[in-house]
Amino acid sequence: MSKKRILVFVGGRANYSSIKSVMLAVKKHPDLELQTVVGTSAVLERFGKVEDLIVNDGFNINARFYNLIEGESPVTMAKSTGLGLIEASSILDNLKPDFVVIVGDRFEMMSVVIAAAYQNIRIAHTMGGEVTGTIDESIRHAITKFAHVHFPANDDALKRILKMGESEEFVFNVGCPRTDLVKKELENDSLEVLKTLFKDNGGVGNEIDLCKPFLLVSQHPVTTEFGCNRMQIEQTLQALNRLEIPTIMLWPNADAGGDDISKGIRTFREKHKPDWLHVFKNLPTNQYIHLMANTACLIGNSSSGIREGAFIGTPVVNIGTRQNMRMRGDNVFQVGYNSQEILDAIVKQVEHGRYECSHIYGDGKAGEKIADTLANIEPSIQKTIVY
Amino acid sequence: MSKKRILVFVGGRANYSSIKSVMLAVKKHPDLELQTVVGTSAVLERFGKVEDLIVNDGFNINARFYNLIEGESPVTMAKSTGLGLIEASSILDNLKPDFVVIVGDRFEMMSVVIAAAYQNIRIAHTMGGEVTGTIDESIRHAITKFAHVHFPANDDALKRILKMGESEEFVFNVGCPRTDLVKKELENDSLEVLKTLFKDNGGVGNEIDLCKPFLLVSQHPVTTEFGCNRMQIEQTLQALNRLEIPTIMLWPNADAGGDDISKGIRTFREKHKPDWLHVFKNLPTNQYIHLMANTACLIGNSSSGIREGAFIGTPVVNIGTRQNMRMRGDNVFQVGYNSQEILDAIVKQVEHGRYECSHIYGDGKAGEKIADTLANIEPSIQKTIVY
Amino acid sequence: MSKKRILVFVGGRANYSSIKSVMLAVKKHPDLELQTVVGTSAVLERFGKVEDLIVNDGFNINARFYNLIEGESPVTMAKSTGLGLIEASSILDNLKPDFVVIVGDRFEMMSVVIAAAYQNIRIAHTMGGEVTGTIDESIRHAITKFAHVHFPANDDALKRILKMGESEEFVFNVGCPRTDLVKKELENDSLEVLKTLFKDNGGVGNEIDLCKPFLLVSQHPVTTEFGCNRMQIEQTLQALNRLEIPTIMLWPNADAGGDDISKGIRTFREKHKPDWLHVFKNLPTNQYIHLMANTACLIGNSSSGIREGAFIGTPVVNIGTRQNMRMRGDNVFQVGYNSQEILDAIVKQVEHGRYECSHIYGDGKAGEKIADTLANIEPSIQKTIVY
Amino acid sequence: MSKKRILVFVGGRANYSSIKSVMLAVKKHPDLELQTVVGTSAVLERFGKVEDLIVNDGFNINARFYNLIEGESPVTMAKSTGLGLIEASSILDNLKPDFVVIVGDRFEMMSVVIAAAYQNIRIAHTMGGEVTGTIDESIRHAITKFAHVHFPANDDALKRILKMGESEEFVFNVGCPRTDLVKKELENDSLEVLKTLFKDNGGVGNEIDLCKPFLLVSQHPVTTEFGCNRMQIEQTLQALNRLEIPTIMLWPNADAGGDDISKGIRTFREKHKPDWLHVFKNLPTNQYIHLMANTACLIGNSSSGIREGAFIGTPVVNIGTRQNMRMRGDNVFQVGYNSQEILDAIVKQVEHGRYECSHIYGDGKAGEKIADTLANIEPSIQKTIVY
Repeated sequence: MSKKRILVFVGGRANYSSIKSVMLAVKKHPDLELQTVVGTSAVLERFGKVEDLIVNDGFNINARFYNLIEGESPVTMAKSTGLGLIEASSILDNLKPDFVVIVGDRFEMMSVVIAAAYQNIRIAHTMGGEVTGTIDESIRHAITKFAHVHFPANDDALKRILKMGESEEFVFNVGCPRTDLVKKELENDSLEVLKTLFKDNGGVGNEIDLCKPFLLVSQHPVTTEFGCNRMQIEQTLQALNRLEIPTIMLWPNADAGGDDISKGIRTFREKHKPDWLHVFKNLPTNQYIHLMANTACLIGNSSSGIREGAFIGTPVVNIGTRQNMRMRGDNVFQVGYNSQEILDAIVKQVEHGRYECSHIYGDGKAGEKIADTLANIEPSIQKTIVY
Repeated sequence: MSKKRILVFVGGRANYSSIKSVMLAVKKHPDLELQTVVGTSAVLERFGKVEDLIVNDGFNINARFYNLIEGESPVTMAKSTGLGLIEASSILDNLKPDFVVIVGDRFEMMSVVIAAAYQNIRIAHTMGGEVTGTIDESIRHAITKFAHVHFPANDDALKRILKMGESEEFVFNVGCPRTDLVKKELENDSLEVLKTLFKDNGGVGNEIDLCKPFLLVSQHPVTTEFGCNRMQIEQTLQALNRLEIPTIMLWPNADAGGDDISKGIRTFREKHKPDWLHVFKNLPTNQYIHLMANTACLIGNSSSGIREGAFIGTPVVNIGTRQNMRMRGDNVFQVGYNSQEILDAIVKQVEHGRYECSHIYGDGKAGEKIADTLANIEPSIQKTIVY
Repeated sequence: MSKKRILVFVGGRANYSSIKSVMLAVKKHPDLELQTVVGTSAVLERFGKVEDLIVNDGFNINARFYNLIEGESPVTMAKSTGLGLIEASSILDNLKPDFVVIVGDRFEMMSVVIAAAYQNIRIAHTMGGEVTGTIDESIRHAITKFAHVHFPANDDALKRILKMGESEEFVFNVGCPRTDLVKKELENDSLEVLKTLFKDNGGVGNEIDLCKPFLLVSQHPVTTEFGCNRMQIEQTLQALNRLEIPTIMLWPNADAGGDDISKGIRTFREKHKPDWLHVFKNLPTNQYIHLMANTACLIGNSSSGIREGAFIGTPVVNIGTRQNMRMRGDNVFQVGYNSQEILDAIVKQVEHGRYECSHIYGDGKAGEKIADTLANIEPSIQKTIVY
Repeated sequence: MSKKRILVFVGGRANYSSIKSVMLAVKKHPDLELQTVVGTSAVLERFGKVEDLIVNDGFNINARFYNLIEGESPVTMAKSTGLGLIEASSILDNLKPDFVVIVGDRFEMMSVVIAAAYQNIRIAHTMGGEVTGTIDESIRHAITKFAHVHFPANDDALKRILKMGESEEFVFNVGCPRTDLVKKELENDSLEVLKTLFKDNGGVGNEIDLCKPFLLVSQHPVTTEFGCNRMQIEQTLQALNRLEIPTIMLWPNADAGGDDISKGIRTFREKHKPDWLHVFKNLPTNQYIHLMANTACLIGNSSSGIREGAFIGTPVVNIGTRQNMRMRGDNVFQVGYNSQEILDAIVKQVEHGRYECSHIYGDGKAGEKIADTLANIEPSIQKTIVY
């Protein structure tokens, strides 16, 4: 019997962390063959070119496409998806996978979802059923309606997917694949892993002493609040500027509004020349996990604070609507776009220190469970809503 | 106060029948401004260029795009959607509508849905919540997850939309806009309307005497059964060939597999030279309605048999999976792809004759209800699933 | 030493006849590796899907793309080129050829030319330097300015290429590759080859007795005369209708205006039901050559009358501007778009009968000469105009 | 009589300087109507968004498109052109200009050229017939073969265009439109214009005292030397680092390789923290001209050194192949990619000081001459090579 071909699409750095353990498990599985496709920001230097990390991790890239149209506005985000759809169609036509695995809810995912759906290729979806803000909320649930198999990361999410009319037979709460990486990574020694952080990743600004308390900031654009992103990052920077605690920050992702945030950070740096701030383009997952395990507080609107943060116990200040109603543990403190509010919350979390480990986002075996399931199921290509 | 801009996208002839009464009502409404965009098969001679009908009906075309890539295969259907998304993005960026109205579930609809959603434009969806076969089933429910307002055509559909987590406040059972046209059209005299049928619409084959019993056939490709469509039309043609009842047939739509059906019909004509068969490229809605009101039996897999057929009382033989579980009245008799089964069903329906009028697909006022609703609501651009 | 990779792009049936002998010679050459890419009308049933012929001839298809956007208008012709450029870019990036061989001047060629030029891949051009009508005239010379090596088909053409500032070192008059096929094919027996013409190729209309005098018609749209093509084919059909000599006709190619010609032919057939007319979608090159060798007269605006016709000695009535100033032998009689003029010319040519063989378009060894040259040259990627 | 519609496409900041005087003259001309279309880097913040300058200068933007695909590699340059062709086709179809004016030879120009040519719209070309390096050399001459009217900027160029087979009747040496701007701008007082240079344009690095000798650097990628651009800029930076003369530098344009140059500059800044270097994203044309009029030496490979430099008399060190054989005055000193050679040349030019004004690139009236010519000619849409 020939192996089932499982195609995984990676569109950016966050994507990869969310699916790496699945890729490893598929690659190792005797009945499965892994096909890896990269595109959108995963192939671009400007976003850390996670493609190189993937190759370094021993995966073979089967196809690659460039589809990000410059402009970072809502209209180019839509067009980039159109171009990605054209590209992904050809790629799927050539690779002829049995399953396409779609991660989460980023805008470029729709390119691959539609290319697969219209070509009668089965779709497996991870991290569906969650509730957040931005256009991701709509994208995520629309993908659910195209997907043939669902791997939600928690129980709330599973219930929502069933409610939307998906067949119980094909919905599996496997936990979050990111937790797999976290669990494995925490077996290593933080100091060892972070020793070469600055040498490895360059970035701009002074080096930070990681043995002393430091902050970690990761704030991305909110596409439904296009036009407000500059103000939002400025509130955060203002709070940080008053604290002057040594801080590691990441540049924002490629969504509409990302340019505004980048500009906000660049302007702040030119103006205040903050000696306490170091900004990285992006970081390898392993180093990021150890930063989360050692930071005094993670600030911003990255889902990592909520997902990985739960397992690690990182104190988190989550700003604004981007994570909306995503299920969260005790470690997360929610605030609005207000520099005073943000400042107060950071102080509170720094004082509290590390939280207990929580399993709401899985026990670290999601990758294997997904691979096993894909090897053993054969859903009908014709979906029918359950009601 | 400036008028709300309501953009209606028409992708083909069936589309137009489904939305014409809405366009009329929006155009007439004092607080609304209608924007009409045509694309995909609506602009092509080969599919009857419904664009010309639209202009003849007194509507102004605000923008037009060509996005149908030749090939009629799953891969070109996907690519056409990608190209349509690129085109629709520019158009929406220019026209800046307040609402985009999306009709039903054809593949090209995803182009406009994503272009609108990613640009933070509100989406209204008609005919959502139904259950059918083919990829349309997934497309329809995915659109629901992007749409801000829902206008299902019957009660079953409304319940499904609510179950999928849409907010009750924005879901309205207004009936089917196609029923509006039917009701209005049936006020005219059939013989008068059909008098110039052959002169108006050309087509190939002998003219049919519409005062004697005749059959009406409309069979479209089933995209999830790509590769089988040639066989499927041949089963139908074989049944018709044994009956030799005068028959009016329509060429199939532009979905993947449409070429196979066309080829089946052409080959049959060359081989059997049937004097009882006339094939039209397409027909004006009004003439089609009167054909439905006078045919001895409508055969195929067009949704018209189920929707308009319910109100008109047309005897229908519905073949195969395309209409799947769409709510249907007593007038519909379901069969598989088998020439004997099809033949028996036709004989039975011809004997039965006309059915009673049913209101399961509305009372003929959907257009006005939709226009009024759009004028009065203002849903948040940020959707959140209800659970 | 690794072989040089020679990529040949085939965009349609005429293309293939123009390059087949080159493909055969490259495939056989010990220092060369052939890469075959098909696209545009070469992949479409509607245009005879020459892709299947290519595979039957023993070639391997390395990549395929769909880029023809329906509409057959100037705007879709331009857009199809844009889509083809997107597709061809990815394909060249994957196949990494050393040379891309471009045939002639059809609109889709610009897609591959620009994709190659912008990616620093060397371009070889066949059939450059000729003078014709339509947009092909501009396309051909623009390709010359991108090409690194030139293989004109006759001496006039060579001189024009040099005059345009190309380097003498890289311009070679090798004759026309189509002559290669003709020479080889004429070794076979016409009656044998044509025995199964109708069985092999289907088409519509009665079969024609090829032992009696018959006409051959091949008339394509003139893109710069968009809007006039319907009238142009009607003039030809009118002349033929008065002659009622048994006639074999070919459907037009995919250029803007092709639909108008097709419609003209279809309408004529429905109206006049001509028993003397048989229309083929397309024909294998070998059968077409024997038709040219046996027809009483070839009518239309196909370049075959001028190129292959010269070597075969076919009497030709060339209509209108499409072939413009292309170098021609005694066998060609030029007329305008006027049914009387066309009729008179046909009568004259039928009376004259076959002409003597001419070598103005080569001696039948173009393919080998091109392959040998490509194996032995290495032009600089940086072109500089000679003056 | 309705006015002739003259569409000007602007793809970036350099483009605009090359065509602004033509736009002014067309706008003022009683028989002409100006249509302005912007795209590619002209609409992007990252490249100085020249669109805003255009609007500030009082022009109305008729259409805008985003087509730059991120990646800045040869493959994305090709794809961006494909996307641009799709976009430009729709725009020309809507605006229906009588003439499209194409400036020079940048890669995105092919999008608009092909869109126009395939839609039977007349093309006027400025700055054709010159000889340079990079792919621009091929693009420029290919555009000549599509263009119906030619406005070369000098006599050498005119002769080359005629030699390529263009009709003498439609080739006009009008001088360079950039000289128009220069002539007009030099009427203003340099100190006044440059007073707010740093305040207006931001940029990174210390402010430079413009009353003391300073250098001006503008070095762009050479697409045919993709892969070497990082090394090339490093040689220049090394020379500058030894001189430590106050220097104003501009970021590179969007061609393939631009990212490498940017990275080279960024890395240099982080490593050497040069207090003598200020880098601007881009500059208004007027301020740039006064910098050229006051700099001790202009270094790099910008055409401005050769064109405007001739009229202004700027001492120029031109590096590498990008300007190739472009006709040049005495003010230009040519060197290779070698830091020592560059350094020696800068020293020599700084010592020499300002050169005499030369008219080889026109007398400052190109814009008016072009507008008058366009108003008075009507070339046939069908081109035919002259030989």
